[in-house]
Amino acid sequence: MIQNNLSISEKSCSLKEVLDIIGGKWSMPIIYILSKGKMRFKELERSVEGINTRMLVKELKNMEANGIINREVFATVPPTVEYTLTPKGEKLLPSIASLHQWGQEFASGM
Amino acid sequence: MIQNNLSISEKSCSLKEVLDIIGGKWSMPIIYILSKGKMRFKELERSVEGINTRMLVKELKNMEANGIINREVFATVPPTVEYTLTPKGEKLLPSIASLHQWGQEFASGM
Repeated sequence: MIQNNLSISEKSCSLKEVLDIIGGKWSMPIIYILSKGKMRFKELERSVEGINTRMLVKELKNMEANGIINREVFATVPPTVEYTLTPKGEKLLPSIASLHQWGQEFASGM
Repeated sequence: MIQNNLSISEKSCSLKEVLDIIGGKWSMPIIYILSKGKMRFKELERSVEGINTRMLVKELKNMEANGIINREVFATVPPTVEYTLTPKGEKLLPSIASLHQWGQEFASGM
């Protein structure tokens, strides 16, 4: 469980820091989808139900700035861009899997 | 890991359902704080860094409606209200602990 030498509000504060980074509506679904391997923009846009181009551009920029994904540009004509999870991004997968499991058990019964 | 018989977009969609319920900025910090035991409104307000009364009222209403917390009113004068996690709410604690751990490792180095 969470170690106990931090005060409750310190811990809820650092949890908030995490949620500032990955708490957005689309971050965790994108991370989950990239767990399957590298993807191009259009593939990602098709896989994340309900997202539009503008939101995906913004989200990917944030995630790259926070070191969660890598963005690689290939000098093809036109240029190709591929996205992959960084090791730091991959370390979120257990949390996402466990939230997904909770959802399977409870969310659809809302 | 996440079972594979669902398509990628179905899984990212049910993840989104979970985040609609607990993805708000304050839900997980509140759940984490209530993991320490029952709490009254003012105690919660003091423990969740940066939250104000209006936001806490709104968040607690959502969480009660989604079956994540219990709200118990005691007929004292004035009435006392105590909040506790439901079993369903408690099942989120492993995911929250693992997100918190990720934050300890990475978030402060942002």
